[in-house]
Amino acid sequence: MAVGNFPFPSMNAVAGVKLGTASAGIKTPGRQDLVVLEVAAGSHVSGVFTQNAFCAAPVSLCKEHMAATEARYLLINSGNANACTGEDGLADARTSCAELARLAGVKTEQVLPFSTGVIGERLPMTRLLAALPNALAALSADGWESAAQGIMTTDTRPKGASERFEHEGVTVTITGISKGSGMICPNMATMLGYIATDAKVSKAVLDNLSKRAADQSFNRITVDGDTSTNDSCMLIATGKVALPELAVTDGILYTKLFDALVRVYTTLAQSIVGDGEGATKFVMVNVEGGQSEAECLEVAYSVAQSPLVKTALFASDPNWGRIVAAIGYAKVDGLNANLVRVWLGDVLIVEHGGCATSYTEAAGQAVMDQEEITIRIDLGRGGSFERIWTTDLSHDYIKINAEYRS
Amino acid sequence: MAVGNFPFPSMNAVAGVKLGTASAGIKTPGRQDLVVLEVAAGSHVSGVFTQNAFCAAPVSLCKEHMAATEARYLLINSGNANACTGEDGLADARTSCAELARLAGVKTEQVLPFSTGVIGERLPMTRLLAALPNALAALSADGWESAAQGIMTTDTRPKGASERFEHEGVTVTITGISKGSGMICPNMATMLGYIATDAKVSKAVLDNLSKRAADQSFNRITVDGDTSTNDSCMLIATGKVALPELAVTDGILYTKLFDALVRVYTTLAQSIVGDGEGATKFVMVNVEGGQSEAECLEVAYSVAQSPLVKTALFASDPNWGRIVAAIGYAKVDGLNANLVRVWLGDVLIVEHGGCATSYTEAAGQAVMDQEEITIRIDLGRGGSFERIWTTDLSHDYIKINAEYRS
Repeated sequence: MAVGNFPFPSMNAVAGVKLGTASAGIKTPGRQDLVVLEVAAGSHVSGVFTQNAFCAAPVSLCKEHMAATEARYLLINSGNANACTGEDGLADARTSCAELARLAGVKTEQVLPFSTGVIGERLPMTRLLAALPNALAALSADGWESAAQGIMTTDTRPKGASERFEHEGVTVTITGISKGSGMICPNMATMLGYIATDAKVSKAVLDNLSKRAADQSFNRITVDGDTSTNDSCMLIATGKVALPELAVTDGILYTKLFDALVRVYTTLAQSIVGDGEGATKFVMVNVEGGQSEAECLEVAYSVAQSPLVKTALFASDPNWGRIVAAIGYAKVDGLNANLVRVWLGDVLIVEHGGCATSYTEAAGQAVMDQEEITIRIDLGRGGSFERIWTTDLSHDYIKINAEYRS
Repeated sequence: MAVGNFPFPSMNAVAGVKLGTASAGIKTPGRQDLVVLEVAAGSHVSGVFTQNAFCAAPVSLCKEHMAATEARYLLINSGNANACTGEDGLADARTSCAELARLAGVKTEQVLPFSTGVIGERLPMTRLLAALPNALAALSADGWESAAQGIMTTDTRPKGASERFEHEGVTVTITGISKGSGMICPNMATMLGYIATDAKVSKAVLDNLSKRAADQSFNRITVDGDTSTNDSCMLIATGKVALPELAVTDGILYTKLFDALVRVYTTLAQSIVGDGEGATKFVMVNVEGGQSEAECLEVAYSVAQSPLVKTALFASDPNWGRIVAAIGYAKVDGLNANLVRVWLGDVLIVEHGGCATSYTEAAGQAVMDQEEITIRIDLGRGGSFERIWTTDLSHDYIKINAEYRS
C-alpha cells in the first residue's frame, strides 16, 4: 500500500548523463536489477552516505574511489545489499567495478558501486558480471524511468523528479531518481538517490549543495526509525550548460540552483515516505517556536516515531493525548507544557497544558479522516522551526516486515 | 496476550501497611478501580516519577505533598489518568486528597494521589469521592492482591512480588505491586509501582534505594519506546522491624536490603514487559564490552526499540542483519564493526563484520523459536555492560493500540 500523490513525472534528460538497465537475476530471475549510470568526462560527483557503523562494502569502496579520482560510472544493483559480507563482499564490489571499468575503458577507481537488498548474502558474481555488457549497451539519455524501476526493492512504485530553471537565458536541468520504502529515518536509511544537473559547479560548491539539500529532504523523513547499512545519495554536475562555473555559495545562480535541487530532493524524499511499508497516511510534523532547530527536530522525531501516535494515525483517531505525551518525553530541557500548542491541520487541539476549549472531537476527526495530515506544534519558547515527514504504523507494516527477509 | 512465567505470588504482609480497594465506576461500572494504601505514622515514603514535561496533575500534586510532609495515605485510581486536564484536573486531585484526609483524620498534604488510564478527560469526582469510605473500610494488611488488580488498565494480569531476608535474627519483608503493559520505556512509562518494606530506613537512604532500584529495573524495560504522563514508583519503609535505623549506604544491611529490593523491583518490571501489548516474546538484550554503561544502554535500546528487529522477533526469524543494522546506527562514536560479536542465546551469529562462519540457520532458528530469547552483544572496546528487557512487535500491538483510546 502507498499513499500520497506521487505519479512518475516526465523526466528531462540531463546533458552528459546516460543510464542503462539490464537483468542480472540477482534475487529474482528476469528482473531488471542492474543499472549503470554514465557521466561525461569533466563531471563532478558528490555524495552523502549512511552513518551506520556497519556500512556495507560498496559504501566503503565508493568513498575510497571518490577520494582517489573523479567518477565516470555509477554501478547499482538491487536485490542484494552486499552488506555484512566482510572481506569477501569488499572483494566482490572491487571485482564488479574492475570489470565495468575494463569494459568501458576507464580506471577501476572511476566506477562507484551501490547495492540494495538482502543483508548478509554474497552477490551472485557470475550473473552480475555477465549482465554488465547489456547494461552498457542500453545506455541512453532517456534511461531515467527504467533506472528508477531497476533500483527498486520493496518499493511499490518508481520515484522520480525533474525541474528546470532559466538563468541568463540558459535552461538548467535537474533530474533525479530514488528508492526506499522501509527502514526510513534520518541519516539515510535504506535509501538510494541519484540526482544530476547539467549546471557547471565546482567540486566544493557541489559538496555544499549535496549536503544541504539532503539535510532538508532525505534527512527529514522517517517511517520506522531504522537506518540501513547502504544508504547513499549522489549528486552529479556535468557542466554541460553554457554558463560560467558556479564556485561560490551565494548569489542568484547558487540560490536558484539550491532551490531547484531542494524541490527535486524533497519530492524524491516524500515519494519514499508515501511508499512507506504499509503506509495509509502521509504525515507532516511541523515544529515551531523552539529555541533551536535541534530541539524542534527532537520533538518532531519524538512525535513522528512514537508507535502510539502512529497507530492512532492508522486508526484515524484524533488522540491528542498521545501526541502530547510524545512531545513531553522529547529531550527538551525545561519545556513548559503550559506554553505548548498543538494543531491537527488547522484545528487547535492543545493549549494551556490540556485540551483546547474550542476543540471538538468532530473537528479533529475530520482532519484525521484525511490521507494527508499535518501535525503542527508550537513550543512557545523561541523562533526556530523544523519539519519532517512520516507515515502511520499499520497491520501491513507488521505483515511486510514479519514475512520479508530484508 | 502475555508471555513469560509471572504467576501472582504469595504476598507477605508488611507491618505498618494496609490496603483497601473499592469500586468507583471510573471507567467501567462495577470494576474495583480505587485503591487506598495506608502507611503507619513514622513511615518514610520515597518515589521516582515520570520525566514527561506533560506530567499529570496527580504527579505534580504528589511531589508537592511529599515536599511538605510525610505521607500517611496513597490514593490510586485506574481508568482515568487525570492528565492534560489543566487547572481543573489539579483541583480534582486536591479535592480527592482533601476528602480522604478528612475521612481519615490527617492533613490533605499527607495524602499522595495517583491516576492511570485515559488521558484528557476529567475524573468522575462524585463517584470517586463516594467510594472513598468503602476503600477505607476495606483496609487490610492482606489487601495486596486486590490492590494489584485494582490498579490495572490494559494489563492482562495482576503483578506482584514479595521477598524476605534475615538480619541479626530478624526477618525483613519487602512486598510490592505494579501495573503497566503499553508505552513501556525508560523513564517510567505508564507504570505504577508500590513497594513496601518493614525495614527502618532514614529518608535519605530510602531515596537512594528507591532511585538505584528503579534504575536497575523499571528504567531498563521497553515495549514501544513511549513514556507516559503519570508514571510513579513509590517505596515505603514503615520501620516496624526491631532493627536500628539504616542511615548509611554501605554495610551488610544496606547490601541485603538493596539486593532484595532489586529482586522485587526486577520481578515487577519484568512482569510488565511480559504483559506488553500483544507480546509473544520476552527478550533480554545484554550489551557488554562497552567503554561506558551509557553506550551499552544506547546500543541495547537501539536494538530493543528497532521495529524491524521487533517484527523479526515476532516472526521468529533469526534475521541477524537487522540486529547488526540497529547496532550500527546506535550513537556510539568510533564503533569498530569488525570487533562486534553478537549471539542469539548461545549461538554466535556475527563476528568480523559479517555472519559468523560457525553459524547455521538451523541453530539460529532453534533459539528464535523459543518464547524467551536473549540477544547478547559484545562491542569489543571496554569493560562496561548493561541489560534491558523488551518484547516483540506483533499484529496484536497494532490492533490494541489502533482500537483502544488510551
